[in-house]
Amino acid sequence: MPAYDDLMAFQRTTEALGQVAGRTGWDQETVMPRGSAPQRAEEMAALEEVLHARRTDPRLGDWLDEAHAPDAAGDANLRELRRSYHRNLKVPANLASELARVTSLAQGHWASARAAEDTAAFLPVLAEVVRLRREEGAALAVGTNMDAYDALMQDYEPGGNAADMATMFDAMRPRLLAIRERALAAEEAPTLSGHFPQANQMALSREIATAFGYDFTRGRLDLAVHPFSSGSGLDVRITTRVDEDDPFNCIYSAIHEVGHATYEQGVDATHLLTPIGRGVSMGVHESQSRSYENQMGRSEAYCGWLYGRMRDVFGDIGVGSERDFYRAVNAVGSGFIRTEADEVNYNLHIMLRFDLERSLILGEMEVGDLETAWNDRFLSDFGVAVDVPSNGFMQDVHWSVGLMGYFPTYSLGNLFAGCLMAAARRDIPDLDTDLARGDPSAATGWMRKNLQQFGALRPPREAIEHATGEALSAEPLLTYLEAKFGDLYP
Amino acid sequence: MPAYDDLMAFQRTTEALGQVAGRTGWDQETVMPRGSAPQRAEEMAALEEVLHARRTDPRLGDWLDEAHAPDAAGDANLRELRRSYHRNLKVPANLASELARVTSLAQGHWASARAAEDTAAFLPVLAEVVRLRREEGAALAVGTNMDAYDALMQDYEPGGNAADMATMFDAMRPRLLAIRERALAAEEAPTLSGHFPQANQMALSREIATAFGYDFTRGRLDLAVHPFSSGSGLDVRITTRVDEDDPFNCIYSAIHEVGHATYEQGVDATHLLTPIGRGVSMGVHESQSRSYENQMGRSEAYCGWLYGRMRDVFGDIGVGSERDFYRAVNAVGSGFIRTEADEVNYNLHIMLRFDLERSLILGEMEVGDLETAWNDRFLSDFGVAVDVPSNGFMQDVHWSVGLMGYFPTYSLGNLFAGCLMAAARRDIPDLDTDLARGDPSAATGWMRKNLQQFGALRPPREAIEHATGEALSAEPLLTYLEAKFGDLYP
Repeated sequence: MPAYDDLMAFQRTTEALGQVAGRTGWDQETVMPRGSAPQRAEEMAALEEVLHARRTDPRLGDWLDEAHAPDAAGDANLRELRRSYHRNLKVPANLASELARVTSLAQGHWASARAAEDTAAFLPVLAEVVRLRREEGAALAVGTNMDAYDALMQDYEPGGNAADMATMFDAMRPRLLAIRERALAAEEAPTLSGHFPQANQMALSREIATAFGYDFTRGRLDLAVHPFSSGSGLDVRITTRVDEDDPFNCIYSAIHEVGHATYEQGVDATHLLTPIGRGVSMGVHESQSRSYENQMGRSEAYCGWLYGRMRDVFGDIGVGSERDFYRAVNAVGSGFIRTEADEVNYNLHIMLRFDLERSLILGEMEVGDLETAWNDRFLSDFGVAVDVPSNGFMQDVHWSVGLMGYFPTYSLGNLFAGCLMAAARRDIPDLDTDLARGDPSAATGWMRKNLQQFGALRPPREAIEHATGEALSAEPLLTYLEAKFGDLYP
Repeated sequence: MPAYDDLMAFQRTTEALGQVAGRTGWDQETVMPRGSAPQRAEEMAALEEVLHARRTDPRLGDWLDEAHAPDAAGDANLRELRRSYHRNLKVPANLASELARVTSLAQGHWASARAAEDTAAFLPVLAEVVRLRREEGAALAVGTNMDAYDALMQDYEPGGNAADMATMFDAMRPRLLAIRERALAAEEAPTLSGHFPQANQMALSREIATAFGYDFTRGRLDLAVHPFSSGSGLDVRITTRVDEDDPFNCIYSAIHEVGHATYEQGVDATHLLTPIGRGVSMGVHESQSRSYENQMGRSEAYCGWLYGRMRDVFGDIGVGSERDFYRAVNAVGSGFIRTEADEVNYNLHIMLRFDLERSLILGEMEVGDLETAWNDRFLSDFGVAVDVPSNGFMQDVHWSVGLMGYFPTYSLGNLFAGCLMAAARRDIPDLDTDLARGDPSAATGWMRKNLQQFGALRPPREAIEHATGEALSAEPLLTYLEAKFGDLYP
């Protein structure tokens, strides 16, 4: 067999095992009995051992040297495999396994330290994670012109770099601050009230997920502590969570995860279990979840429909008009928690994390200085003093599991979503009429046709530019936010 | 490190991967979306490829040559590993992965063909499964004095063989027929009537499962088309099914699976993720499910308690006394379905399957002749003509997933259960007093102490003889059945 075919046959098994590992993670978060945890840790380690051995198998190097791709999809498969193979070769095996061991333990330490507001218990653990990730970043940077932070970022956003991020953030910051200033000076938005039974929230979330194009014959919706989407191809599962006093938590988490999941479900079937048979980057993934959740789900047109539907399901919900419901959905506040932030504040949270984690990885700051740096920056950016670490630097799991370089992809996703939805609205003039009927299918169909079906065929930025036919720019996102929140907070 | 320690470290990872494969099977039967089946087949094949490579890794041969066991558990681990290693070496890797792929798909074909009563759709699939299992049986028989059927049986019942089975069946058949003849000539047993809501059936099943010793912190109870128990060690899951007109289906399936699951949960924790850290054979496994379901769950004492509890839960259930309830639970009929058969007819169903599947594997019969052979035999053995394939040869999933050689272990399990419960009753004179209070814990504790805790420390027959202190015999089972049904049908 030609080297390319041997390579792809070998890789298909690896991809299938990767899907099993992902689903084992899904099981752990949704249905696993609590007493199974110690055995599950050994099962996950066993799967990781097998996957690591396959991803660094010396035959991959030979095949990659000799392989000739039969077509453009083949070129893209080789591009993805080369990047992953050379990446994994650069990280010494003992560093990789030390990272796996330390980060898996650190997550538990983070959870209990956060619950106890115990900074002192968390810092030594975080210092160890930072030390190992600095080392990994340095190893990955060898032979490139990247610094350690940019090298780490490649795992989440191939082609991304901190300089571009900083330029993007510099362009966004003053305009976001101007919107926020006006919003915080204005009358407070209305809030929902009432009781929202779990069964009704889940039934409504299923109805909405289906309308947004989620295919339940190849997926399922369950409850988990933290909402997530898991899997590629023919088995892509999502979770949400329920607060019986706040239905938005469940519904908007579901729409968000449907954005991720339909990206995976939308990839052309010919790419199943190949390296390009999945979303191309975290940023492009987030462009889908943000387009679905925010640009469509929180639009005035869709909120008009959702208001009526929620009154059908829940009765009186404490707000008296479509407009007030729309204002409630898009209330701009000044909370501590990133995951609860509105569209305006969200990117300001990310800028804070981006600057701090980059300083940590580049050795410009030590872990011991992190809490003070966070609190100073939060006061200066948000005008509020952090009260407890769980509202401050200990709020996210990300750093404890070593995900430095990941945060900026959330803002990149918002930026991509701005470009994509501007193009979708250009091509679908009646989109708001559809959304006002609760029907996002024209836009989700547009996403599938112009972006989702290609999986990782094109690198992230190219994928967005191919879909929109325009050069990448922060302008569509900012124009959208200024128009939307200028109307909401005139 | 000494060879034994190297071997056990390597094997621990294999055992952990085996647990993942088992749970992937659980997922497929309980929560997997329908449209995921084609990808799941590739995932199962990938796991099977990895497991097969590990189970035939040449290093195993070297370690097994050099290893010295530190204790009796170590001896047993080496015994199990040698059997599995030499078995797996005989099966070519491509045959193993082909079997995994084909049987995973065949299960879906079986389910839809059975639902549609579509023999023609099922036969080509079954023919492929039979072809592959014949090939596997032939490969396994090389270098032994076994035929292909006995060779396949070793996977389920090490040390078992068709000749012993035939002897056992010959001893049982006339005495079972005599019981049945008297029962069918007698007055018909009463039947339950009423509506039995799913939620109440599941709640009662959970209550009963807990009383029978099932640990929900290391397991869970879900719905599936075909009830089963899955997993070893710290994650052992069971399923049942619900018919809202017939609560016995759910409750007795649950008790049955609890028998299997408590065997796995009861193995001493020091054997976790080692070759002996699980039930030793399907026959011994079935001894537990049959002891729990039939010998305890359908005893007159336990039925007395269950009658009262069911009236608490469901109100009027259409029978007016403990004795009538006991008669309803143990009604001897002449139904088509093995899994619904009473204790007398059950073994006659197994005899039919044993003869037919042995003929299929030995090439004495082809798949195209199976339906006629089944129907002829059923008419002759049970006096009833099969009406539709789902009441005939398509009723069980077993053959579609290639489990030829498995059926006889069900009858062996009944025989083992007869021996075990005779010994348990000898050691616990007040057992019926406990059961009449709904408390089987003295007997389940006896099983844990005398059998379950040892896992696969001893070979099947030795394990039973060690637990009972008596030589293995069909006599306790037959004596028990004659006494019980002699009283029910005097």
